[in-house]
Amino acid sequence: MGKTTGRVTLPGESNFLEESKDLLKRWGADAIRDSDGTKLDEGIKSLDAKIYTTYFVARGHNEFAQQHMEECQQIYLMSPYTLADKEEITIAFAAEYFDQQVTPDYDHDPKEWWEVIDRTTQEVVDVKDWDINTKDHTLTIHHAKKFHEYTVSFLAYILWDPTQMYNHITNDWGDKPHEIPFDVRKPFSRAYVVQYLKDWLADEENKRCDVVRFTTFFYHFTLIFNKLAKEKFVDWCGYGASVSTEAILAFEKAYGYRLRPEVFVDNGYYNSTFCVPTKEYLEYIDFQQRFVAETAKELVQLVHDAGKEAMMFLGDNWIGTEPYGKYFPEIGLDAVVGSVGGGATLRLISDIPGVKYHEGRFLPYFFPDTFYEGNDPTIEAIDNWLSARRAIMRKPIDRIGYGGYPSLAYKFPKFVDYIEKVCDEFREIYDRVHGQTPYCGLKVAILNSWGALRSWHAYMVAHGLYCKQIYSYNGMLESLSGASVDVVFLSFDEVLEHGIPEDIDVIINAGDAHTAFSGGDVWKNEKLISMMREWIYNGGGFVGIGEPAAVENGGRFFQLADALGVDKELGFTLHTDKYFHTPLASHFITEDVVEELDFGEGMRNIYALNEDTEIISYSNGEVHLGAHTYGKGRGVYIAGLPYSTQNTRVLLRSLYYAAHKEEEFKKWYADNLYCEVHAYPDNNMYAILNNTNQEQKTNVYDGEGNHVAVTLAPGEIRWMVINDGK
Amino acid sequence: MGKTTGRVTLPGESNFLEESKDLLKRWGADAIRDSDGTKLDEGIKSLDAKIYTTYFVARGHNEFAQQHMEECQQIYLMSPYTLADKEEITIAFAAEYFDQQVTPDYDHDPKEWWEVIDRTTQEVVDVKDWDINTKDHTLTIHHAKKFHEYTVSFLAYILWDPTQMYNHITNDWGDKPHEIPFDVRKPFSRAYVVQYLKDWLADEENKRCDVVRFTTFFYHFTLIFNKLAKEKFVDWCGYGASVSTEAILAFEKAYGYRLRPEVFVDNGYYNSTFCVPTKEYLEYIDFQQRFVAETAKELVQLVHDAGKEAMMFLGDNWIGTEPYGKYFPEIGLDAVVGSVGGGATLRLISDIPGVKYHEGRFLPYFFPDTFYEGNDPTIEAIDNWLSARRAIMRKPIDRIGYGGYPSLAYKFPKFVDYIEKVCDEFREIYDRVHGQTPYCGLKVAILNSWGALRSWHAYMVAHGLYCKQIYSYNGMLESLSGASVDVVFLSFDEVLEHGIPEDIDVIINAGDAHTAFSGGDVWKNEKLISMMREWIYNGGGFVGIGEPAAVENGGRFFQLADALGVDKELGFTLHTDKYFHTPLASHFITEDVVEELDFGEGMRNIYALNEDTEIISYSNGEVHLGAHTYGKGRGVYIAGLPYSTQNTRVLLRSLYYAAHKEEEFKKWYADNLYCEVHAYPDNNMYAILNNTNQEQKTNVYDGEGNHVAVTLAPGEIRWMVINDGK
Repeated sequence: MGKTTGRVTLPGESNFLEESKDLLKRWGADAIRDSDGTKLDEGIKSLDAKIYTTYFVARGHNEFAQQHMEECQQIYLMSPYTLADKEEITIAFAAEYFDQQVTPDYDHDPKEWWEVIDRTTQEVVDVKDWDINTKDHTLTIHHAKKFHEYTVSFLAYILWDPTQMYNHITNDWGDKPHEIPFDVRKPFSRAYVVQYLKDWLADEENKRCDVVRFTTFFYHFTLIFNKLAKEKFVDWCGYGASVSTEAILAFEKAYGYRLRPEVFVDNGYYNSTFCVPTKEYLEYIDFQQRFVAETAKELVQLVHDAGKEAMMFLGDNWIGTEPYGKYFPEIGLDAVVGSVGGGATLRLISDIPGVKYHEGRFLPYFFPDTFYEGNDPTIEAIDNWLSARRAIMRKPIDRIGYGGYPSLAYKFPKFVDYIEKVCDEFREIYDRVHGQTPYCGLKVAILNSWGALRSWHAYMVAHGLYCKQIYSYNGMLESLSGASVDVVFLSFDEVLEHGIPEDIDVIINAGDAHTAFSGGDVWKNEKLISMMREWIYNGGGFVGIGEPAAVENGGRFFQLADALGVDKELGFTLHTDKYFHTPLASHFITEDVVEELDFGEGMRNIYALNEDTEIISYSNGEVHLGAHTYGKGRGVYIAGLPYSTQNTRVLLRSLYYAAHKEEEFKKWYADNLYCEVHAYPDNNMYAILNNTNQEQKTNVYDGEGNHVAVTLAPGEIRWMVINDGK
Repeated sequence: MGKTTGRVTLPGESNFLEESKDLLKRWGADAIRDSDGTKLDEGIKSLDAKIYTTYFVARGHNEFAQQHMEECQQIYLMSPYTLADKEEITIAFAAEYFDQQVTPDYDHDPKEWWEVIDRTTQEVVDVKDWDINTKDHTLTIHHAKKFHEYTVSFLAYILWDPTQMYNHITNDWGDKPHEIPFDVRKPFSRAYVVQYLKDWLADEENKRCDVVRFTTFFYHFTLIFNKLAKEKFVDWCGYGASVSTEAILAFEKAYGYRLRPEVFVDNGYYNSTFCVPTKEYLEYIDFQQRFVAETAKELVQLVHDAGKEAMMFLGDNWIGTEPYGKYFPEIGLDAVVGSVGGGATLRLISDIPGVKYHEGRFLPYFFPDTFYEGNDPTIEAIDNWLSARRAIMRKPIDRIGYGGYPSLAYKFPKFVDYIEKVCDEFREIYDRVHGQTPYCGLKVAILNSWGALRSWHAYMVAHGLYCKQIYSYNGMLESLSGASVDVVFLSFDEVLEHGIPEDIDVIINAGDAHTAFSGGDVWKNEKLISMMREWIYNGGGFVGIGEPAAVENGGRFFQLADALGVDKELGFTLHTDKYFHTPLASHFITEDVVEELDFGEGMRNIYALNEDTEIISYSNGEVHLGAHTYGKGRGVYIAGLPYSTQNTRVLLRSLYYAAHKEEEFKKWYADNLYCEVHAYPDNNMYAILNNTNQEQKTNVYDGEGNHVAVTLAPGEIRWMVINDGK
C-alpha cells in the first residue's frame, strides 16, 4: 500500500519546526493543535496544516470572574455524618472540603436553599431548629434526636476549575492564578462569553485558527477535592457542578416544583450513574441539557460565522452537552474529539450522532511518564492501537491524533516508525470502511436505566480508570465495541413506552443488584417483566451478567430466573435442595476456550433452578456460566466478564446461542480467538485481523461458512475480496 | 483418678449380654436404651441399669391412623412457578412432590383453603378464576395475565412420617408399612394418644421401663421429598407440618383473623429461619407452642403417674416444644436428649431450662459406615469429644451416651478404651463443674430476629450439616460454646421492648443482609438504631460479622457503619475516594494468630470509612477485619468466622477489644491458642485444656494475670487448685 496522507492531528510545540515538518510528512498529518497553556509559534502556524486552537468558555477569564464572584459556579455538598450525642450538636459542614476549591454560599439564604437531614429517619430538620455560624462554617442543631445522625446539604461556590486545579497542583504551578469557573446561566457571564468569543474570533491573532476546539463548554463533571487537596469524589457523568439558584428557580418555573437540595445530594450518592435515577434528577438533567444546547449553539454559530469549525472536547466541562442526548445535534458542532483508551472509548466517540467528524486522541500521550530512557512507549501504543482498531472496524472515527510534546516522541525512533504504520493503516481502514455497513450477525441491545444516554460509557466512574466493582461488567462493553454485532443501548423507560424494538436479537442486562445497570425496583414493574418474558419466550435471547433483573419479589431474586435457569441464593431458600451441580462436558459457548475461564469478580451463590439448565461452568458450589431454553428463546447467565480476547469470544458465542443462531456463527469468523473477521458486503471485501502482537494461524470462514487456513503476522490486518468475479 | 460410674447410657442390643455387662462396667454406664425398631431382650433388661424406652406418640400406630385418614397431619405446599404463556393455563401443582409422602387435601374446600398467587404482582387470584381437576391434581386458571408467573398454595395430607420414610428408603425396608402421622389437634387422635399411653404404661411388658423417651411429640420439622423420593426441602425449625384447618380455625378464634396459606408458603421460603419472621408467623408458632405444651404436659403427667421419667428427644417431631420458648418448662419433662456434633450442639442441649437433666448422644454412632475394617473410629470420637468438652466446661450436660450397635464398637478395642477414658473424664469434669458458675470475663449477647428461641441453633438448616452460606457465621457460635464468656441470645423485639440488659458487655450481630440474623428492615427502626448507637457510644462493644445491621438507608448500608468504621460499597459511592487501605502492623485482636487468617466465605467490597478505623486485615481492595472507637465504646468488624481454634481466639480477642477490656484478657488464659483455661472460683479450681490431640506447651495465666509455663499431653485436661491456702 502506498503512502497516504490526512486524518491525523499532531500536537504542536514551539521551537520544533523542522522535526514537526518531518513528523507531518511521515505520519501524513494534516492538522496541528495547541493544548492547555501551550501556544503555537509562528513557524508551526505557517505549516501546511489545519490549526486547532483550544478555547475555554467558562474558565480562564479571571479578569472577568473576579469582578463577578456572585456568578461563580455552584454545587450542593453534603457535610460529614454527625452523630447527635446530645440535643444540641454542631456540624462543621465544610470541614472535609478544600477551601480553595469550594466555599459555602451565604449570599442565598441558607434557610431557603440548604437542608439539614436526619439521616436515621431521612426527615428534614425544621429550619427553625438550626443556626449557622458563617465565621467558622458550622451549623448548630438545637433539638436533635439523640443518637440520630445528621447531615447538612449546603450550597457552595466553586472557586477553582477542578481540571486546572488538578494540573496546577500536580505540576506545582505555584503562583499561577486559580481559574474561577463562572456560570453562563447568570447574566454577566452569559453576556461575557458571547462577547469574548466575538472578540476572540475577530482578533488577528486567531485568524490562522481553523478549528476552535472548545474545552469544553459550561459545566465540569463532578470533581471535588478534600481538605488535603486530594480527590474526594469524581463522577465523569455528574451534573453536580451545574446547579445554581437561578437554575433551580428556572426549573421551578418550567416544571412547577422546586428541586430540593436532596435531589442533588442524594444521600451522599450525588446521583452516581450507578444509582437508579430519580424522576426529579432525570427532569433536571434534561432541563440543563436544553439550556446547554441552546447556549452552546449560540457560540458555535459565532464560530461558523467567522468561517471556522467548532470542535468539542469530550471531557472536562462537557456536562449537559450529552452527545447521545436529544439536544446535542442542535448545537451544530462540526466535530467531537476525545481520548481513546480502547474499543469502548473509541465507540463512545465514533458513535456520536449529529457531527461531521469524530477524532480520537490515542495513547500514549507524549509525556515524560512514558517517554523516558529505558522505556519502550511502542508497547503501550501497540496495545492501544490493537484494542481500538477492532472498534474502528465497526464504526471508524474520522481522524486520529496524539497529545503531549512531540519532541519527546521524536527521541524514540521505533515509536515514530510504529505510529507512521498506524497512521497509514488507519487511513487504509478508513477508506475501505467509512460509510460502509459492516456485516453484523446479530443486533444486541444493552438494557439499563440510562439507555442510549450512557452509550459506551455505562459503568464509567472516573474516565477509564480501573475499578474493582466495574471491570467485570465493563469488559462486556469493551468486547462488544469491536465485535461483529450491531449494538444499541435501551433504557427501561423506552422499553416501557415503546416496547422492545422488532429487530433486536439479544438483550443484555448486566450489573450489580439495585444499580442503574441492573435496574433495581423497575423489575417489580409487571409490564416490564411480562414484556421481557414474552419477548424471550417468543424467541428472543437474554444474556444476564452479574445480578441481572435482580430484586427480591415473589420468591425470586432474579426476576428473569425462569428464563435464565439460575437464581441467586439470598439465604431464604437454603433449606431447599439444589440438585444441579454438574457442568456439561462441552457447550457451544465455550467451544473456543483455550485458557481458564475468567469471570472477574464473579458472583456468589448462583444456583441452577432446573434440570434443563445447561450448566457450563461450575465450581465451589456456584454456577458461573449457564444457559437455559425458555419457550422459543434462551437465557444465558454469566457471572462476570472482564475484558479479554477469550471473554470476547465467550460473549459473542453467548449472544449467538441466546439468539438461537449457532448455525450463523461461523460466518465471517476466525476459529482462533485471537483473530477476528470483519466483512463489508456492499464493498465486496473483508478483513482478517490479528488482534495480538504475535503470529497467529487461524481458519477463516466466509459468509457461506467455507473456510481456509491463514497465517497472520503480528498485528496484521489482511484485506480480502469477497467475490472476485468467479 | 479412680474408677467412677454413672451418667452414661449404652445402646442395648439383643444377644449381647456378656459384652454389654463388660461395657457397662468399663464405661461405668448406668442406663441402657433401645432405639427405633430395636427391642431389648430379657437378658439386657435384667442388668443393673435404668432402661430407656423409645416411644412414638403420633406415628407408628397405623391400625389407628388408617381408620382416621382425615386426621392425617397436613402441610401447605407451593406448586412450581408456572408461566402464563396464554390466558388459560394449567398447573400440575403436586407434580414435584412424592405422592407416597403427600397428597392434596380435597376434603376441605380448596376454594376456601387454597390460594393461587400471581407471583409477578403478588396478587391473589380470584377463586372464581380457577378450577381443580382432582383426578390428575391440576388446577386451571382461566384469565391469567399473560407472562406472569403463577403458583398454587395447596393444603396436603402427609401420609408418611418423614423420618421413618427416610430410614425406610435408605435401609430398603420393602413392605414395612409407611407410618402415618396423625394430628393430636384432631379429636380421635387426641383421645387415641392419651388412651394408648395409658394402656402402654399399664402394660406388663413396659414395667421394666424407667424412662419413657418421647421420640418426639406431635409435629415433625419440615422435611418434604420430591417426586423421586429425594429430599426437596428441610428445615429443622420449620412449623410447616403443624398446620391443619382445625389449627387455623382455632387460631382465628383466638386472634381474630384467618391465617392465609401465604403465611405458611411465604413465597416458597416456608418461613425459613433465615427469613425475618412475620408478625403472623410469630403469632402462629406461639399459638402452636401453647397447644403442644398443654398436650405434651398431659402425656408427661401420665408417665409420672406411672412412676416413670419422661425424656424428650430433641429432634424429629420436636416442633412446637421449643425448649427455649416460653411454654417448655410447663411440659414438666424430666430430661432432654439430643445429638452432639460439637460445642454449639452440646450447648443447645445443656442450656435448655426447665428440665432436671440433659443428655447428649455422642458421635460416632456405632454403625457400619464408621465401624468397618481398616477405619479407626477413635479419630472421629476424639474430635467429637475435644470439641464438645470445651462446651461441657462452660455448661455441662448431665449424661452422655452412644447409639447404634455396641457389638460393632466392641470389635474396636482401641475405641472401647478411648470411650472408657472419655466416660471417666466426663464424670470427673461433671463432678467439679456441675452447678458451678465458671469464670466469665464478659457477657455477650447475640442479637437477631429470633433471640433466645434459636439459642445455639441460629443458622441451622438441616441439623448440623455443612452449608456454604452458613459456616462463616456458625463458627461464631461454635467458638463461643466453649469460650469463657457468658452468652445470651437477644431478639430485636426484646431489645425494643425492654432495652439492652444492663450487664451486657458486647453485642454480636452476624449474618447476611436481610436475613433474620442480620435483621433487614428492622435496622430502619429509629428506636433500635439510636438505642444501639447510644449503648455503644456509652461504652458498649459491638461485633459485626458479615453484613451486620445491613439495610440501605440514609446513604449507609451498615446502619452501624459509624460504630464499625466500615461499610459495604453497593456501587452507589464508587465515585467516592476510599483512602484507607493500610493494615496496622499489629493489633490486639490478632496477637495470637499463627496461621493465615480465615474469613470463610468472607464479604466483598467492605471499606474503611475513617482515618481512625483500625484496619487489621486487608487484601484485594477489601477490609476483612477492622475495629473502630465510637465514643467510649468500640465496634469490631469481621468478614466471616468459620470455626477453628485460631478463629475462636480471634473472636475472643475481638470481644475483649470491643468491650475495652484488653487488660482483663490475660486472666484464666493460655497464650497457646490450642489451649484454654476454665476457672471455677467458687470451687477454688481451674482446668487447663489441650484442645488438640498433640502435645502443647503454653503459658497459663491465673486470675491475677500471673503465668507459669506448662506442657500438656494430647487432649489433656489438667485440674489445678486456685488458692492452695498459702
